[in-house]
Amino acid sequence: MYKQKSKLNLLRQKIHIIIYGTNTVAGRLFDLILLGLILLSVFLVMLETVKGFDVKYHHELIVLEWIITVFFSLEYLLRIYTTNQPRKYIFSFFGIIDLLAILPMYLSLFFIGSKVFSVIRALRLLRLFKILNHPKFTGQSLHIQQALRASRGKIIVFIYFVLISTIIIGSIMYIVEGEENGFTSIPISIYWTIVTLTTVGYGDISPATPLGQFIASMVMILGYGIIAVPTGIVTAEFSKTNTDKTAPEKQVCENCGVGNHNPNAKFCHRCGHPLTLE
Amino acid sequence: MYKQKSKLNLLRQKIHIIIYGTNTVAGRLFDLILLGLILLSVFLVMLETVKGFDVKYHHELIVLEWIITVFFSLEYLLRIYTTNQPRKYIFSFFGIIDLLAILPMYLSLFFIGSKVFSVIRALRLLRLFKILNHPKFTGQSLHIQQALRASRGKIIVFIYFVLISTIIIGSIMYIVEGEENGFTSIPISIYWTIVTLTTVGYGDISPATPLGQFIASMVMILGYGIIAVPTGIVTAEFSKTNTDKTAPEKQVCENCGVGNHNPNAKFCHRCGHPLTLE
Amino acid sequence: MYKQKSKLNLLRQKIHIIIYGTNTVAGRLFDLILLGLILLSVFLVMLETVKGFDVKYHHELIVLEWIITVFFSLEYLLRIYTTNQPRKYIFSFFGIIDLLAILPMYLSLFFIGSKVFSVIRALRLLRLFKILNHPKFTGQSLHIQQALRASRGKIIVFIYFVLISTIIIGSIMYIVEGEENGFTSIPISIYWTIVTLTTVGYGDISPATPLGQFIASMVMILGYGIIAVPTGIVTAEFSKTNTDKTAPEKQVCENCGVGNHNPNAKFCHRCGHPLTLE
Amino acid sequence: MYKQKSKLNLLRQKIHIIIYGTNTVAGRLFDLILLGLILLSVFLVMLETVKGFDVKYHHELIVLEWIITVFFSLEYLLRIYTTNQPRKYIFSFFGIIDLLAILPMYLSLFFIGSKVFSVIRALRLLRLFKILNHPKFTGQSLHIQQALRASRGKIIVFIYFVLISTIIIGSIMYIVEGEENGFTSIPISIYWTIVTLTTVGYGDISPATPLGQFIASMVMILGYGIIAVPTGIVTAEFSKTNTDKTAPEKQVCENCGVGNHNPNAKFCHRCGHPLTLE
Repeated sequence: MYKQKSKLNLLRQKIHIIIYGTNTVAGRLFDLILLGLILLSVFLVMLETVKGFDVKYHHELIVLEWIITVFFSLEYLLRIYTTNQPRKYIFSFFGIIDLLAILPMYLSLFFIGSKVFSVIRALRLLRLFKILNHPKFTGQSLHIQQALRASRGKIIVFIYFVLISTIIIGSIMYIVEGEENGFTSIPISIYWTIVTLTTVGYGDISPATPLGQFIASMVMILGYGIIAVPTGIVTAEFSKTNTDKTAPEKQVCENCGVGNHNPNAKFCHRCGHPLTLE
Repeated sequence: MYKQKSKLNLLRQKIHIIIYGTNTVAGRLFDLILLGLILLSVFLVMLETVKGFDVKYHHELIVLEWIITVFFSLEYLLRIYTTNQPRKYIFSFFGIIDLLAILPMYLSLFFIGSKVFSVIRALRLLRLFKILNHPKFTGQSLHIQQALRASRGKIIVFIYFVLISTIIIGSIMYIVEGEENGFTSIPISIYWTIVTLTTVGYGDISPATPLGQFIASMVMILGYGIIAVPTGIVTAEFSKTNTDKTAPEKQVCENCGVGNHNPNAKFCHRCGHPLTLE
Repeated sequence: MYKQKSKLNLLRQKIHIIIYGTNTVAGRLFDLILLGLILLSVFLVMLETVKGFDVKYHHELIVLEWIITVFFSLEYLLRIYTTNQPRKYIFSFFGIIDLLAILPMYLSLFFIGSKVFSVIRALRLLRLFKILNHPKFTGQSLHIQQALRASRGKIIVFIYFVLISTIIIGSIMYIVEGEENGFTSIPISIYWTIVTLTTVGYGDISPATPLGQFIASMVMILGYGIIAVPTGIVTAEFSKTNTDKTAPEKQVCENCGVGNHNPNAKFCHRCGHPLTLE
Repeated sequence: MYKQKSKLNLLRQKIHIIIYGTNTVAGRLFDLILLGLILLSVFLVMLETVKGFDVKYHHELIVLEWIITVFFSLEYLLRIYTTNQPRKYIFSFFGIIDLLAILPMYLSLFFIGSKVFSVIRALRLLRLFKILNHPKFTGQSLHIQQALRASRGKIIVFIYFVLISTIIIGSIMYIVEGEENGFTSIPISIYWTIVTLTTVGYGDISPATPLGQFIASMVMILGYGIIAVPTGIVTAEFSKTNTDKTAPEKQVCENCGVGNHNPNAKFCHRCGHPLTLE
C-alpha cells in the first residue's frame, strides 16, 4: 500500500518534470507538441470563420477541435494534479488562460452556435507568451520591459497631452467641417483626428472645406513630428541601459580610488595597482 | 465685529487651502471631484453632438450641464474671493480658461441654439493640463519640455525646409497631374503633398498619370526617410539630458560652492581646491 | 566729372550694403520687404489656380503680379550693377533663381495662357532658402547638414536595398494579384509596394486575394520595422556630433597632461594646476 | 601543343581578371556594362507588362531581350570556364541567380506565353546586391548588418509580441464589427489589424460601429507608440558601435599587446605596465 503510493508519487513527479520542466528531452518534446497544438488550434479558429472553407470541411474542423480540446483538458488536469500548489496555479494568469482554452468547447455543447464562444478559443494564443519565459528570450524581453518601464512616466505625460489635443482638435474640426462632410459628431471627429495624427489615414472621412484641409495639414505635420517624442524617450532609455550594462560601476581602485575601469581590467588604469575582482 | 472679520478671514484661508492646495485630504478630494466633473462635462459636450443620443436624453443632458456650470461658477467665484491677487488670477491662462468654461452656458440663454457656443465648452478640457503641474508629473513633463526646447532651433529649420519643399512639390504635381485627376489647384496639390509626405495617405486624391505616380513614389520615400531628422534631433537631446542626470550632481566644492565636476575629479575646476570624495 | 563718378560709386556702395548686407537698419528692412513680397507672390501664384477666386479677382491678381515683377526686376538689375563680380552672381544658384522669378511674367506677354510659365514663378520660393544663411540659423542648419552628410553612405546603401526589394516585391505582387485586382503592370505594382512600404497606404490599389493580403501584411511589417534603420543611423550621428561639441578636446593640463576638463574649468580636476585658457 | 595550352590558360586567366576583378580598367568597364544591362533588362521586364507599350513595341522588346540573354549566357559560361572551383560557383547564391537570369528566356521557347517565366527574369535584379560587396560600400553595409544582428534577439521578441497582439485584436474586431462591416473572417480582421497597427491605413476595410472605432483608435495609438521600440533598439546599437569607433583604437600595451584602454589610462588594465601616451 505504502509502496504503491510511493510509486504513484514517483509517477506524479515524473509528469511534473515533463509538464513544468524544460531541461529533459521529454519536457522539451512536450513543450514543442503543446506549441504546435496551440498554433494549430488558433489556426482552426481562424479557418472556421472563413465562409467557403467552413462549409467544405465543417466535419473535419469539429473533429480536430475536439481532439485538441481533449488533449488540453488532460494537460490542464495533470497540471493541477502534479503541482504542489494547485490553488495557486488555478488562479494564476496562465491557469485562467488554460481554463479559457478548453471551456468554450464544452459550453458550445449546451449553447449551440455562439460565435463569441468560438472566438474566445483564440485566447489560447495568450499561452504563447509563456515562451517569453524561456531562458533564450528572458534577457531580451527583460531589457525591453526595463526600458519601457523607465520611460513610463514620460510616455504617460505624452499620451495625456496627445489625448487632450485630440479632443480639442476633434471639436474644432466638428465645427469647421460639420455633418455634411462626414464629421457627424464630436466622437467621430475625434476618431478622425486620431486616424490623422497617428498617420494611419484611412480616408473613410476626410476634410472637404479649405479651412478643414488647412487644419488637417497642421495636424498631419504635428503627428509626423511628435512621433519623435516617444521614440526619443524610449531610445534614450535603451541607450542608457546599454551603457549601464557595459560599465562596471562599483569596481574602484583600492589604491587611488579611481573608477570607470574596463569591464575586464585587472590593473588600475591610473596608478597601475592590481584590481580585486568581484 | 473684528472677531467676525477674523472668522471670515479664517474661512477664506481654509477654502483657499482646499481649492489651491494639494496637501490636505480635503484639497485632494476637491481636486478629484473637479477632475471628474471636467471629464463628465467634456463627455456631455461630445454626447450632445451624437444625433440619436441627444434626441433621446436632451432634457437630462441640459439638467446635468446646468449642475456642472453652477458648480464651476461657484468654484470660479471662490477662487477669485480667496486669492490674494484676484486680478492676476483672472487674467492668467487658467483664469481665462476657467471663465470660458462657464460663460458659453450663460450666453446660450440669450443666443439660442448656437453650435459654436456649445462646443467652446470643450475648452474646459484645457483645465486638465493643470494636472501636469502635479509634483508626480512635473519632473517628467519638464524633461520633455527641456528636450523639445533644446531642439527647437533645429526643428524650426527642418519644418521651414519641409514647408518650402511641400509648396514646390505641390506646384509640380499641379502641372503634372492637372485638374482632371483631382489636383484642382495648387493649395489642393500642397494638401495632397502634406498628406503624402507625412505618410498619412487618405487616398481622397491620388496620382493617376505614370509620371505623377513616379514623383509620388519619390515623395513617399523622401517622407519616409526624413522622419529620421526630427527623431534624431529630439532623441539626441533626450540622451544628452539623460547623461547629465547620471553625472554626480551633488559633488560640490567646499571652497567656492561650484558643482558639475568631472566624475573622477580630485580638484575643483574653478578654484583648484581639493574635492572630498564621497 | 571725376567727382560725379565718385558720387555714383558711393551710391553704388550704399545700395550694395542695403541689398547684400544684413547689418544696417536699411539692409534689414530691405530683406523684410523682399521676404514679404516673395511670400505674397507665391501666395498669388497659388490663388490664381483656385477656380472661383481667379474669375472674381483676375484683374487685381494681374496688377499685383506686375508690381511684384517690376520690383524683383529692379532688384535683379541693382544686384548685377552693385556687385563686383556680376558674372559670378548671374550664374550662381541664387542668380538663376532670381532670373527665373521674373522671366515667366515677361514671357507670358508673348506666349499667352501657358500654365507652365505661370507655375514656374513658384520657384521664387527657392529664394527663401537664402534665409537659412542668416547667422541665427546657420549653426542649426549646419548641424543637420553635418549629421546627414556623415550618414550619407549608410543611407545610400539602405535606399539601394529598399529600391531593389521594392522591385522584387512589386514583381511578385503583379503575378499574385494580377490585372483584375488593379495591379495592371509591374510599374504600378512597384508604385503600390512603395505606397505600402512607406506606410502611406492610399488605398487606390489594395490586394484582394488571400495570398496577396498575406504578402501585403509582411510588406507592412517590414516597412514598419525598417524605418528604424535610417532613424537609427541619423540619430547616432546627431548624438555623436552632440558629444563632440560639448567636450573640449584640446584643453589639456600642462602639469599632468590630463584632458577631458569641464568646458569652463579653470583648474585641472586631477592635480589642481591652473589651466591656461585658450 | 603545350604552348597552345599555356596560351589558352593565359587567356583564361585574363578573362578571369576581367570578369571577377575590379582593379583593372577592363574589369571595371565590364562591371559597368553588366550593371547597365541588368538595369536595362529589368526595365524591359517592367515595360513588357505595360499594356499599351507591349502592343506597340513587342518586336523590339523581344529582340533586345534576346541580345541581353545571349550576353548573360556568355558571361555565365565564361564564369564557369575561368573559375578554379566551377562547382562552388554554380551552387553559390549568385551562381543560381545568374542561371535564373537566363533560363526563363530559353524555357519560354517551349512554354509559350507563361507570365510567370517572364517575371522570374526580374530576379536578375538580385545580381545588383553584388555591388554591396564593392569596397566603397562594404564598411557601411557591414555597420548596418552588425547593428541589425546585435538587435536581432530583441527584434524577434518584439515581432513575436506584435504578431500575437495582432491575432487577438483581429479576433476581437471580428466579433465587434462582424461580417456586415467588411470584417468577413478572422484572417481578414488580422489583415485589417496589421494595416492599422503599422499606420498604413488603406481604408479598404474600416470600422463602422462606435465600439469598433474606439478599439481602432486604441490600436492606432498603440501602433503609433510601439514604433518607438524597434527604433530605440536599433538606434541604441548604432550609437554603441559608433562609440566603440571613436574610442582610441590604436593605444596598445607594449608589454602584453592588449588594446581597448580607457581614453586617459596611464597603465595597462591587464598587466599594469605603464602606457606610453601618444
